[in-house]
Amino acid sequence: MGLLESLQWRYAAKKYDPSKKVSEENIDKIVEAARLAPTSSGLQQFRVLVVSNQELKEKLSQNALNPEVMVDCSHVLVFAAWDNYTEERIDAIYDRTTDERGLPRGRFSSYTDKIKGIYLNEEPEKNFIHTAHQSYIGFAMSIAMAAELEVDSTPAEGFDSALVDEVLGLKEKGLRSVTLLYLGYRDSEGDWLAGMKKVRNPKSEFVIEYR
Amino acid sequence: MGLLESLQWRYAAKKYDPSKKVSEENIDKIVEAARLAPTSSGLQQFRVLVVSNQELKEKLSQNALNPEVMVDCSHVLVFAAWDNYTEERIDAIYDRTTDERGLPRGRFSSYTDKIKGIYLNEEPEKNFIHTAHQSYIGFAMSIAMAAELEVDSTPAEGFDSALVDEVLGLKEKGLRSVTLLYLGYRDSEGDWLAGMKKVRNPKSEFVIEYR
Repeated sequence: MGLLESLQWRYAAKKYDPSKKVSEENIDKIVEAARLAPTSSGLQQFRVLVVSNQELKEKLSQNALNPEVMVDCSHVLVFAAWDNYTEERIDAIYDRTTDERGLPRGRFSSYTDKIKGIYLNEEPEKNFIHTAHQSYIGFAMSIAMAAELEVDSTPAEGFDSALVDEVLGLKEKGLRSVTLLYLGYRDSEGDWLAGMKKVRNPKSEFVIEYR
Repeated sequence: MGLLESLQWRYAAKKYDPSKKVSEENIDKIVEAARLAPTSSGLQQFRVLVVSNQELKEKLSQNALNPEVMVDCSHVLVFAAWDNYTEERIDAIYDRTTDERGLPRGRFSSYTDKIKGIYLNEEPEKNFIHTAHQSYIGFAMSIAMAAELEVDSTPAEGFDSALVDEVLGLKEKGLRSVTLLYLGYRDSEGDWLAGMKKVRNPKSEFVIEYR
């Protein structure tokens, strides 16, 4: 199934069959798509936490918009972005990149000095907006990958991010939760959205061309 | 080519062959992937502007980080998000959705009242951060689609967004530019990044599992 067919196939599942679990092999592929996602300056400013523990899912679902969806799904992916830029984080990524490419460390120092000059003088909250932006690219890749595998998913922003950060100890990891992706298999009969027409802005409104 | 293979294939092209143009058929597919992208509350808070006009590309490239990449590529996609939420914008999307699904208008009013209560009392700048987040999902889908088609691309944040907004009259359209995606075919000999190893955080660092 190509990407356009996958995107036509998918929808945001509203009810999962709790008896059906996503295989570890498929979870690995869905996470791998996020890992391979491009990010600004290649900094890979986000991580993915994979939660299949039922008790933990129940804790994380408190105050969520649709807690039962989180509880009934098979796995919850938490996309969490760096809480700020630091010199150490930037250097660690670039040192790995040069090491793996067989280049001398510091090969990109004129570039990294430039981005450090921007980010290290910026408010943490503004930097977090930027790292969160990047996490949406990975989030999208996981959504697309799940659809390719015909695994149902629900992209979610309606959750208590302070609670999720607390429960998962994200602050200590230098991360903040941004989005969740519930994964599993739909309960078609109980899902009001299953089978409804996908509606989007028509191309004539969505696209503006300058030839 | 599946998504994982596409993501392994792609890289951020640093030099394009200006003589090679992307077909309209492929541009349509790359834009279509963004159009089908999921968004928060299904609001489709962004648009795509497609620029192939050479003079316009040159104007937009002023003050960009790598202006020659924009000038030499075949097409520039501008991902532009709503500058704010308004009652009219939210209603227009939900009216279309209910109309196309054969449901009465207002079918989702308890939900739309709730999101209006949040967004319409929020600072425009904070709302724009949220609409911009959504645009990154579409941006990612276009990046993935280009790769599936073996069209080279360069995701770009390093441009003068105020200038792009001005030149394209985005303010009048209620939009603000967020990211650019350059599309075309690489000039392998002139591109220092072509053929370099893709480096990512290893899975052991990228993923944290809670079973």
